[in-house]
Amino acid sequence: MLDVKQIKQDFPVLQQKVNGKPIAYLDSAASAQIPRQVVEAMSQYYATSHANVHRGVHTLGERATSAYEEAREKVARFVNAPVPQNIVFTRGTTEAINLVAYAYGLHNLKEGDGIVVTLLEHHSNLVPWQQIAKLTKAKLYMVELTAEGHLDREQYRSFLKQGNIKIVAVSYASNVLGTIVPVKDLIAEAHAVGAVVIVDAAQSAPHLRIDVQDLDADFLAVSGHKMLGPTGIGFLYGKGKLLDVMEPFQLGGSMIGLVDYYESNWAEVPARFEAGTPNIVGAVGLAAAIGYLTDLGMDNVRKHEEDLLAYAWDRLDQVEGIQMYGPREPRTGLIAFNIDDTHPHDVSTVLDAEGVAVRAGHHCAQPLHKWLRVAATNRASFYIYNDEQDIDRLVTSLQKVKELFGYVTR
Amino acid sequence: MLDVKQIKQDFPVLQQKVNGKPIAYLDSAASAQIPRQVVEAMSQYYATSHANVHRGVHTLGERATSAYEEAREKVARFVNAPVPQNIVFTRGTTEAINLVAYAYGLHNLKEGDGIVVTLLEHHSNLVPWQQIAKLTKAKLYMVELTAEGHLDREQYRSFLKQGNIKIVAVSYASNVLGTIVPVKDLIAEAHAVGAVVIVDAAQSAPHLRIDVQDLDADFLAVSGHKMLGPTGIGFLYGKGKLLDVMEPFQLGGSMIGLVDYYESNWAEVPARFEAGTPNIVGAVGLAAAIGYLTDLGMDNVRKHEEDLLAYAWDRLDQVEGIQMYGPREPRTGLIAFNIDDTHPHDVSTVLDAEGVAVRAGHHCAQPLHKWLRVAATNRASFYIYNDEQDIDRLVTSLQKVKELFGYVTR
Repeated sequence: MLDVKQIKQDFPVLQQKVNGKPIAYLDSAASAQIPRQVVEAMSQYYATSHANVHRGVHTLGERATSAYEEAREKVARFVNAPVPQNIVFTRGTTEAINLVAYAYGLHNLKEGDGIVVTLLEHHSNLVPWQQIAKLTKAKLYMVELTAEGHLDREQYRSFLKQGNIKIVAVSYASNVLGTIVPVKDLIAEAHAVGAVVIVDAAQSAPHLRIDVQDLDADFLAVSGHKMLGPTGIGFLYGKGKLLDVMEPFQLGGSMIGLVDYYESNWAEVPARFEAGTPNIVGAVGLAAAIGYLTDLGMDNVRKHEEDLLAYAWDRLDQVEGIQMYGPREPRTGLIAFNIDDTHPHDVSTVLDAEGVAVRAGHHCAQPLHKWLRVAATNRASFYIYNDEQDIDRLVTSLQKVKELFGYVTR
Repeated sequence: MLDVKQIKQDFPVLQQKVNGKPIAYLDSAASAQIPRQVVEAMSQYYATSHANVHRGVHTLGERATSAYEEAREKVARFVNAPVPQNIVFTRGTTEAINLVAYAYGLHNLKEGDGIVVTLLEHHSNLVPWQQIAKLTKAKLYMVELTAEGHLDREQYRSFLKQGNIKIVAVSYASNVLGTIVPVKDLIAEAHAVGAVVIVDAAQSAPHLRIDVQDLDADFLAVSGHKMLGPTGIGFLYGKGKLLDVMEPFQLGGSMIGLVDYYESNWAEVPARFEAGTPNIVGAVGLAAAIGYLTDLGMDNVRKHEEDLLAYAWDRLDQVEGIQMYGPREPRTGLIAFNIDDTHPHDVSTVLDAEGVAVRAGHHCAQPLHKWLRVAATNRASFYIYNDEQDIDRLVTSLQKVKELFGYVTR
């Protein structure tokens, strides 16, 4: 059980009032808030240990390098990677996926090859593959959803059976429906036909225990800012046998072996993929965020969100005129919805006046919204610092929306 | 005049002792230290304003978006860009150059076209162009140095005269020799033959007043962490007429217009080049760093470094057995050197024991070191928090190096 009252104390941003009301922050799927322990770890780094990494033999350079590489070790343990060298620091999930698209996809796909994506993808795990397909003349296949809103496993298998699929790009959890995808099974099926699988874990790493070895994922991409870490840092997990033979993505300092006038060769992994000065303080912050989550226990985090989700689902379900999207289970702690014929932007504006923060829009998932036959949705997403009171305030505020837009009268 | 004593108070990291000695931090060309005002600006952001940008209609989302876009405006003013839309936030100089290499170079070069680089480039402004040359079958030309260590302007003009040069990639200031390059003249000459110029300003933006309109630069790349900002943030300035017609580099959320199953179109500039959640807090920190520098006045910063450089040059010149590299003027506040036949790593280790932090190595400029006929150098670099006492300690410690390695006896 999480002690939410205690946890809230660690988040100064949640102590504020917004529009005269306490904040009910229900937008963590876009970006989570950051506990003071993470801010302090970064301030402490700057006050004691900053310099550039990997290149200095002076004390601050060594401290900075240790801090950065210890962060890599913490990340590796967090997702159960075999060795820290499996972890490449990136700006976030998007850059991690672009790295794989450019450095693996561009060099390993040819005309006629196939890439499988799903309708549950965030644009970050769709648009790069559209582009790589265009550049390599590979073909893109989109796994759609069953009427119940689950991935169409039959369609997926039929794509794999074609014999040309080289890459599968799949979300572990949908950022709109919350749906938790059976990625372990999908990976096993993809491996059976020799395809390589990249998992977008942006919406699962903050909420579930991730084990890349158990999943047998080839690549897995995560953002720090959705899991209590700072912006500007995330990581790619990659199997050693894949990373080791990959060409680099970005080029510059630290990723090279020897540089001559007209050609260069590359450093070992993971340095090969980390051109230029990395976000050292970001890695330190991410490590602190992982420490915070690990102290709570990822199983406790998951249990807390399941309980909140159950409570929220039942309460929202009683709001007249509400439409909630996606299957009830299995899902992470988020609910996308529309209410009567109100526009989501109007809804979230009214909610904001009540201190309730939800997101409105297509959530970077336009194809899915096309399938849902709506232009936009509201999305309420929960995290460790949310409690039933936040949900109650959402529900109460939705009543005000209905009154304001004339769907009910007092 | 800078009040260094006062300035030092703003840098907690410099209040420490290292190996029992006060720190003389002479490695700012690798990464500058960060004042408490910048750390506080970032903490304040997290305590009051964090959410994801551009997508929310709630209060925190609006505050975060304002903070991020105000940072863009501050950056634009700092380099005198016509409009904030000329500024693309990146992880740093390296990503900014890679963005231009991939998004401009890859799409605009063809077999037989030429790219001009110089021997003064950091790997970050060389290796991407080697790679783009390889991918497009364009030809790379390297401008070498005169015997005095200045760029060979005759060779540069002879390359331009060939008629095939489409891109010139040039450093504003060398990270090894400190040499300030007459980029304004080089740009005018390149424009006369229709070439586009990208300026690596990583080593100049922290030290000089930059005016992209006066330079008439097409692209200009800067890192935040070398100018009192946090790691993980930097920017690309680009002319609107170039950015507007460029393809994107990284793909994902926020950089798209419409996304369908199999194709997408792109957002306006600069969003088109900022896929995924950006480093929001990094931009806030960079803006605070710019505020700090602007309060000091960039002309005062430059004057301070010139004075320190003059003092350091004279004092080091009196150290027996020292070899200082590059022309005395015009240069930024850094000096690369070797002393007798000692290895730079040994030198910096001994200096570190005395609390003096310098960098040893090839400083991500192997071709230049090849030209200098040394594998590595020591580099002492100065910034706003350094004073003559730091230089004195460097000189005194170098005497210890000479004693230790038997070049002098007491």
